[in-house]
Amino acid sequence: MILALSVIMLFFEAGVSSSSSSSGLENRIFQYIDLHQNEFIQTLKEWVAVESDSIQPQLRQEVTRMVELTADRLRALGATAELVKLGSHKLTDGHSLLLPPLILAELGKDPQKPTVCFYGHVDVQPAKKEDGWKTDPYKLTEIDGNLYGRGATDNKGPVLAWINAVESFRALKLDMPVNLKFIIEGMEEAGSLGLEEVIKKENQRFFSDVDYIVISDNLWLNNRKPALTYGTRGNLCFSVEVQGGQRDLHSGTFGGIIHEPMTDLIALLDSLVDTSGRILIPGVYDDVDSLTEEEKKLYEAITFDPEEHKNNSGVKKFLYDTKEEILMHLWRYPSLSIHGIEGAFHEPGIKTVIPARVIGKFSIRQVPHMNVSVGERQVIQYLEDVFSKRNSSNELKVSVPISAMPWVADINDPLYTAAGRAIKTVFGQDPEKIRDGATIPIAQMFQNITRKSVMMLPIGAADDGEHSQKEKISRHNYIQGTKLFAALFLEIAKLHGQLQEASNTKTTN
Amino acid sequence: MILALSVIMLFFEAGVSSSSSSSGLENRIFQYIDLHQNEFIQTLKEWVAVESDSIQPQLRQEVTRMVELTADRLRALGATAELVKLGSHKLTDGHSLLLPPLILAELGKDPQKPTVCFYGHVDVQPAKKEDGWKTDPYKLTEIDGNLYGRGATDNKGPVLAWINAVESFRALKLDMPVNLKFIIEGMEEAGSLGLEEVIKKENQRFFSDVDYIVISDNLWLNNRKPALTYGTRGNLCFSVEVQGGQRDLHSGTFGGIIHEPMTDLIALLDSLVDTSGRILIPGVYDDVDSLTEEEKKLYEAITFDPEEHKNNSGVKKFLYDTKEEILMHLWRYPSLSIHGIEGAFHEPGIKTVIPARVIGKFSIRQVPHMNVSVGERQVIQYLEDVFSKRNSSNELKVSVPISAMPWVADINDPLYTAAGRAIKTVFGQDPEKIRDGATIPIAQMFQNITRKSVMMLPIGAADDGEHSQKEKISRHNYIQGTKLFAALFLEIAKLHGQLQEASNTKTTN
Repeated sequence: MILALSVIMLFFEAGVSSSSSSSGLENRIFQYIDLHQNEFIQTLKEWVAVESDSIQPQLRQEVTRMVELTADRLRALGATAELVKLGSHKLTDGHSLLLPPLILAELGKDPQKPTVCFYGHVDVQPAKKEDGWKTDPYKLTEIDGNLYGRGATDNKGPVLAWINAVESFRALKLDMPVNLKFIIEGMEEAGSLGLEEVIKKENQRFFSDVDYIVISDNLWLNNRKPALTYGTRGNLCFSVEVQGGQRDLHSGTFGGIIHEPMTDLIALLDSLVDTSGRILIPGVYDDVDSLTEEEKKLYEAITFDPEEHKNNSGVKKFLYDTKEEILMHLWRYPSLSIHGIEGAFHEPGIKTVIPARVIGKFSIRQVPHMNVSVGERQVIQYLEDVFSKRNSSNELKVSVPISAMPWVADINDPLYTAAGRAIKTVFGQDPEKIRDGATIPIAQMFQNITRKSVMMLPIGAADDGEHSQKEKISRHNYIQGTKLFAALFLEIAKLHGQLQEASNTKTTN
Repeated sequence: MILALSVIMLFFEAGVSSSSSSSGLENRIFQYIDLHQNEFIQTLKEWVAVESDSIQPQLRQEVTRMVELTADRLRALGATAELVKLGSHKLTDGHSLLLPPLILAELGKDPQKPTVCFYGHVDVQPAKKEDGWKTDPYKLTEIDGNLYGRGATDNKGPVLAWINAVESFRALKLDMPVNLKFIIEGMEEAGSLGLEEVIKKENQRFFSDVDYIVISDNLWLNNRKPALTYGTRGNLCFSVEVQGGQRDLHSGTFGGIIHEPMTDLIALLDSLVDTSGRILIPGVYDDVDSLTEEEKKLYEAITFDPEEHKNNSGVKKFLYDTKEEILMHLWRYPSLSIHGIEGAFHEPGIKTVIPARVIGKFSIRQVPHMNVSVGERQVIQYLEDVFSKRNSSNELKVSVPISAMPWVADINDPLYTAAGRAIKTVFGQDPEKIRDGATIPIAQMFQNITRKSVMMLPIGAADDGEHSQKEKISRHNYIQGTKLFAALFLEIAKLHGQLQEASNTKTTN
């Protein structure tokens, strides 16, 4: 009874919130969040201090420790948190390495309430002070209202913001307006290894009663305007290995009489993309969606300042000048980036060596509706053709360590409406409906497998520099983001009430 | 008197040695060397244990320690050893780093005796177990008569062999047949920084009374036949820096709208050399010596087994099939090797990053009579042309951290005759007169500045794998090499006697 009552009260107050900019209940929650912001930042500092780098094998234990830390935190909220074992994976050097476990957590099972599942990851990209960080990447450092540190915005900050929101309800002894589920992984930066299998396996169990899935693992389009994301690019990562002899050779003793693996690899990498950024692999553009007038309008509507984005990038000049061209080449056209070479000399100074085995790393950001497996075949075939024309005596091996599909959602889904209202409440403005040039493969994965409404709700600003030596989240975005998630719980609950009413009226007619 | 007497006795015995395969005096020395070989190997083990890597800045202190260790060893022989300060040098990151001191040592000042100066270096190339070493690169390990370890053959082994030879004379209380000088450096692998200035400065002092200069910093042409080296290729090392923005970027958030520095660099590196190994930079071949009939014959005379060299390389196929073609492309034609890229992702796995600043490293092995400074200009001009055609908004910076001239000597110089006799005595066969595809810039430097007879006398076999993860010197070559240097002292003394006689007869006529 008391529970039911509080739920009604909740709906009432939440109801009010939609008309005014912020209701009494929301005010109480928002005040609590403002008052406790330093505690929330302290927790983020503790999380950033864990070097949960999922790329470098020697740091794998730290990823596992980070996952366990997160599970403890969820249990402290009163959630049941299960650690799902994912087995191990093979490294390029042939060794196999244990994967960190994945968290499936539940908080609340009230059939009266909608169930919202939050996805996040607590692993990070590699970071070393020597890479050019001004601050220690694993020591969260506040400068001018920005919290610098690896994982601050990608993705530890948003995961904690969601947890903070729940914590605030509980601290205020408020009943949760929704049932919550959490799926938190530790291998996102390495391609979410093992995640898809778990989602498939849990589709009939863990996900059976989930109504909405929310992901907060991307950024706004600029530094001030909040955004809702309805699409992302995919990511097809390639390893191109060229092997010559069994060991490195002296360039004086063998230079001039052998096919050098490095020369072959450089030629292969140089055959991929032209100076204008156009991918040279035949057929790659065949399945790219053609641009409709309706889609074109979406870009025109977006407030996007190329200059600001340029400043965020630290780059002097973009390949395109207009807002529309830039957005389309980030969102709806594929791109190819060469990341580096493994096995060659990479330190300062000179080493006059002919490396015996070099591995080039590049990736293609795929877009709707490119077919991942077709893309794989096209690239591998092309590289093999280019290589065979060289008549090299070296050996070529191409592998695809990561392949993540692009994603597009229906922007008219009620979940997006609820999020739009929550954003309006917290930030006083409507969200921009955007896509993301980066890849959050799980959006596509969740939609494909569970068929639930999937939404991406970023809280980080455009200049957060994820993956860079300047990664940060601003204090403001971290704290307002916490409020946003709290407001979202209320809006979804209200939404659910409306949906129920709708279905009730239907049945009574 | 006693001294003079022993000198005469010495000449007498040395005289005998030339006719028979080995004289009584030589026998005594050779026996001593055989008996004490394990001690000699123990010392090499201690030297290899010092990580005197002159490439990586953080190991610079170890290089200095190694130089001091060497000076102590020379003093223990009774030599006076001076440590010459060389100041500091600038690193690519702008920091400046102290250079290790250089050793100038003297042992004996008898005007009756010729003075032989030995050059060697005690720094090494970088080596890490992870690079693929079967043994710890800094722990000398004997397997099947081979002594594996970084620096074993390049160049700590030969430096110690020379020292062992002197030690043997002293242990047997034999008067040294020659005056000895040593010039030992710790920056050879990094381009002998500071060395040239010292040679110039010391030309009128330290080098004034030097008759012969001997270098032992290269390898035989095959695994069994001893060799004498009369020429080497030069080495012109380039750093090609392409700078985009101020920091690395996420390939999802910026891929497709910027000129990626990595794409520019890959295109620049791909423009340097074709699949057949031909350098594509206009004008590079202009000053290469044309092939004379006489030179052609030199190659035909050499016993060289392409198959064996192939096995040493671990490579399946060479670019050329005939002995002559292979030797000419190693010795008298230039080659270009790409060594690696600094600033890009180089670790296992994938990092979806757009590096902001990447530095490509490549080098050209120059040959007589290519002009180093002309070559520099040609390459830089070419790279700038290729880059400007790309209309990239990135910045290109080309620097030349190392430029070492090629070298050719007169094979009819008496010093080569003496060495030929010593080789015949120790190995029972005549040496092959060869060149070296690798670079020992000091040969050219010494000849240019001091105008003395300069000879390169290798003791390592072709399969010693200098700079590789299999660097070694065989126990046999290390010990026989020690004997070779001892025999050389005697032959040079004898040579000197003959020269004096010759000049005496002249004056009496």
